[in-house]
Amino acid sequence: MRIITIDREFGSGGREIGKRLSDALGIPVYDEQIIYEVANEQNIAPELVERISQNDISRVYPTTIGRTLTAPFFFDSTPIDVLVSQQEVIRKLASNGDCIIIGRSADVLMEDMNPFKIFVYADEKSKVKRSLERSDTDESEDEIRRKIKKIDKARAKNRRLLTDKPWGRILDYDICINTSNKEIKDLIPGLVAYINECYKN
Amino acid sequence: MRIITIDREFGSGGREIGKRLSDALGIPVYDEQIIYEVANEQNIAPELVERISQNDISRVYPTTIGRTLTAPFFFDSTPIDVLVSQQEVIRKLASNGDCIIIGRSADVLMEDMNPFKIFVYADEKSKVKRSLERSDTDESEDEIRRKIKKIDKARAKNRRLLTDKPWGRILDYDICINTSNKEIKDLIPGLVAYINECYKN
Repeated sequence: MRIITIDREFGSGGREIGKRLSDALGIPVYDEQIIYEVANEQNIAPELVERISQNDISRVYPTTIGRTLTAPFFFDSTPIDVLVSQQEVIRKLASNGDCIIIGRSADVLMEDMNPFKIFVYADEKSKVKRSLERSDTDESEDEIRRKIKKIDKARAKNRRLLTDKPWGRILDYDICINTSNKEIKDLIPGLVAYINECYKN
Repeated sequence: MRIITIDREFGSGGREIGKRLSDALGIPVYDEQIIYEVANEQNIAPELVERISQNDISRVYPTTIGRTLTAPFFFDSTPIDVLVSQQEVIRKLASNGDCIIIGRSADVLMEDMNPFKIFVYADEKSKVKRSLERSDTDESEDEIRRKIKKIDKARAKNRRLLTDKPWGRILDYDICINTSNKEIKDLIPGLVAYINECYKN
């Protein structure tokens, strides 16, 4: 059983690495699918699930308690419920067989399945450039810069809440990859070889 | 021109990675050789060069000023001279062609030659185990543990002194490799593939 988890800084290309590794290894990658399954289970909008996992929960929480009064679709489901459901969905998906899971502290959640844990990072310039290229809105560079900071801060805080490990501490990953000034596709063959060798034993 | 630098925590297997990469890539690795060349240039004992690069310089310095009175072989060469000479030796060796350089802040020193920068780390348990296996003295586990802390602290402090970068900050490396519970030899094929792809462009 081969579970690969990818944790990543926003804009570092972690999601692309996940998709390309999925193609190269012939195993599924779970990313948005987790959102849809959680939304389905909790009977709420996928956008809300995404918002919860991209925002610092401790901030979403009080707001959404207020929101529940006017947003009935959220009535029976608190952000904590959503995160618990997310953990269940991840474990269920992983139990289907070899896979790659993006983010969501899956590396800690799946620890008993001995995942291969990747952390993807980059310098700010590269992350802004990559985010701008992929953005389908007309966000400015400054807005992107703020978004990167905000999302990464939320990821760090949510990881602290859901696990006993700080986000991005290198000891918690098997390999950490700097994508600054690199084409993601060039990194895949080496990464595949590295993962395969680690799994041989 | 391909320069690969390996920075590493003491006991993480960085030196072994260097030697094995050297065999796999067919390019020289410079490690002890740097010590001998510096010793030769400065006309001091190799042990002293090693001691300076393994100790926090700011501590060696006042001691060795005292020592110069009774240790004439050290009279004309201060620790700072030794480190400057080390930098010159590294640049000279690298100018001969493709190579791998272990430690000594070579990644920063050679920055203008765009090296591929590796950081090797591991959890304490793995580092103690590896160090015990390789130790030719009868050091106890506790002694090894203290040695790891002392040498890594010195590396961090010397890097601070010689460069503008903190030691082990992931953004300063292309890839960071966790060798905990891994056989070094298993990591080489993937690492070679990864380096080769990065150099293709």
